[in-house]
Amino acid sequence: MNPADLFDGLYTPALILDADRLERNAARMRARCDDLGVALRPHLKTAKSVDVARIAADGGQGPITVSTLAEAEYFAAAGWRDILYSTAIAPAKLARADRIQREHGARLLLIVDDREVAAAIGREASSLGARFGVLIEIDCGEHRSGVEPASAELVAIAEALGAHAPHVELAGVMAHAGHSYAFDDLASIRALAEVERLATVSSAELLRERGCPCPIVSVGSTPTALLAGHLEGVTEVRAGIYLFWDLSQLSRGICAEDDLAVSVLATVIGHQRRGPSLILDAGALALSKDIGANRFMPAGYGLVCDAATLKPLGALAVTTVHQEHGNVPVPDESWFARLPIGSRVRILPNHACLTCAAYPSYDVLRGGTLTTQWPRVSGW
Amino acid sequence: MNPADLFDGLYTPALILDADRLERNAARMRARCDDLGVALRPHLKTAKSVDVARIAADGGQGPITVSTLAEAEYFAAAGWRDILYSTAIAPAKLARADRIQREHGARLLLIVDDREVAAAIGREASSLGARFGVLIEIDCGEHRSGVEPASAELVAIAEALGAHAPHVELAGVMAHAGHSYAFDDLASIRALAEVERLATVSSAELLRERGCPCPIVSVGSTPTALLAGHLEGVTEVRAGIYLFWDLSQLSRGICAEDDLAVSVLATVIGHQRRGPSLILDAGALALSKDIGANRFMPAGYGLVCDAATLKPLGALAVTTVHQEHGNVPVPDESWFARLPIGSRVRILPNHACLTCAAYPSYDVLRGGTLTTQWPRVSGW
Repeated sequence: MNPADLFDGLYTPALILDADRLERNAARMRARCDDLGVALRPHLKTAKSVDVARIAADGGQGPITVSTLAEAEYFAAAGWRDILYSTAIAPAKLARADRIQREHGARLLLIVDDREVAAAIGREASSLGARFGVLIEIDCGEHRSGVEPASAELVAIAEALGAHAPHVELAGVMAHAGHSYAFDDLASIRALAEVERLATVSSAELLRERGCPCPIVSVGSTPTALLAGHLEGVTEVRAGIYLFWDLSQLSRGICAEDDLAVSVLATVIGHQRRGPSLILDAGALALSKDIGANRFMPAGYGLVCDAATLKPLGALAVTTVHQEHGNVPVPDESWFARLPIGSRVRILPNHACLTCAAYPSYDVLRGGTLTTQWPRVSGW
Repeated sequence: MNPADLFDGLYTPALILDADRLERNAARMRARCDDLGVALRPHLKTAKSVDVARIAADGGQGPITVSTLAEAEYFAAAGWRDILYSTAIAPAKLARADRIQREHGARLLLIVDDREVAAAIGREASSLGARFGVLIEIDCGEHRSGVEPASAELVAIAEALGAHAPHVELAGVMAHAGHSYAFDDLASIRALAEVERLATVSSAELLRERGCPCPIVSVGSTPTALLAGHLEGVTEVRAGIYLFWDLSQLSRGICAEDDLAVSVLATVIGHQRRGPSLILDAGALALSKDIGANRFMPAGYGLVCDAATLKPLGALAVTTVHQEHGNVPVPDESWFARLPIGSRVRILPNHACLTCAAYPSYDVLRGGTLTTQWPRVSGW
């Protein structure tokens, strides 16, 4: 087969997943966590796919992280039993969380960062006759959510949970060093990894001094997981983007170009001589409006690559998006002969989590051949 | 019922559509087009809903515009018969377009802006035994796509189509003044409306001089449709965002705050004392990363409103988004008592087209009461 014909049967835009790269990425993080002596609890908010989740766990159904209760339902229904829902739970959502546990025999770990909510969770869990494991979220510096490490509020939350045993059980502490994405120098990320570790370990130690067992000490962001000097005292790592990678990570030096496992297949649908630019059938919905990579590299809404090889075509990038159109400025009109209308390209996305969210499924490439489609879950 | 309990049964984030506002917006644009003496072909790329499409046409199933063949399939299956697919067609997509016409007895109008593609469409249509109406896209100044008005390329495309009659038929010309969104002064938008009109009318006149009937002269963007001095020579208007409106349009002075018909219902899931900020369960996926309104007003990723009244709460805006978290800076911690964890707010989105795309359905408000859910189509 001519490599250019590889995607002939696909309608564009389409989300392409290179399963060989995915498997390599997954194996590398498993090995890394083995080296660190911690468990890996893959975050599936990027992939939202049972097929990807199985590869992340080398075929198994170990502990996972999700970002929505829709994901929790989806994975529980497919047999996963140990699911950390990593967005702070609102008490009004507990009835649904309880249903997920009961219907599928799964255990949902919830997170909380407020003493009043902890008490409300306890009351609601009692009233439902439910049992939940709860992690206390620690703010390790990003100031998105979470309590100060080893703080009075941390202890107050633990006490509020303790008052409602056995309906709630303090399962541990967790932090997310999301601010590691603000850096592209490895020394800064390594330093943040240590901050993340200390924030959780010191919090767990304080809780244990107060008589709470605090079995789980969970950290996670892909950059800090990869760059931490050690993770002494930590029990598990949550990370997700390492499965697919994207330009935001590449731009920060965390991965290599040939690690990137997802791309958007698009068709050239026009040549704009004013510019000049290529017009693609992949715009704001197909790529998302995330431009996170541009802080550290010029990437526009995505880098344009050869469809067969996924090698970037010069520095071509989608620089303007409309809902269903993407414009790619070209240096001169010779590009119109090189990429005639009807030809295909692939686009490396800025932020795989957001780009993938627009698609109901992946078209899966393995050994250079399209093999299957893997569905994704969406919504809340 | 306490107004605050209005949304009690809903799980958040949820997409709320105020059907009363929608009906008022729809009626206003119909009246406007009646005054202008042109047909209205609503663009349903924003709404992607048969229920909304019926309201746009005052209960009917008149001509519509769509942005994807998935939308074309969905509306054709539901009985719509006159569908303009407003993204330039790639010849490889014609077999699917033909199937939509045959299976549902619909007529798809396609658009083209290149003479070689016009010839390829003609050849492919002949080979399929299909018949397509084709509009030539005119670039009226945005330089996204389309040919120069009244240009040699325009005539060449018409000739290429003519060579493949009756499989392709030149149905007319169309333009989209998308660059009208770059202005917030009504005089500039009014001037662009005249440029859009002249670009299409002069092109249609040239084609008619060459013996092509060119029955459809189609223009459209909501701002130019509302502000055009007159539309002499134009036969139809395509517009979509007027059905819902959003902050991008409000920021440009095109609509009023109480016209905005879609909002995202979110729950306060945390209070971040470092800041301080509210933490909502509506982040990048629930709101999109579009920040288009910020060019003309401070809106962040969306303005935070009272859940019951949809009145903005001071100047509160979502200024930071993670995948499932939105942070809303507040002036002081008194807001924590005003909006305790578990309380609900509604968020007015920057760009309704992108925000709505994340949701499988609308929760519909009518007469101040939640009445039903309307599904949406998505994907390609």
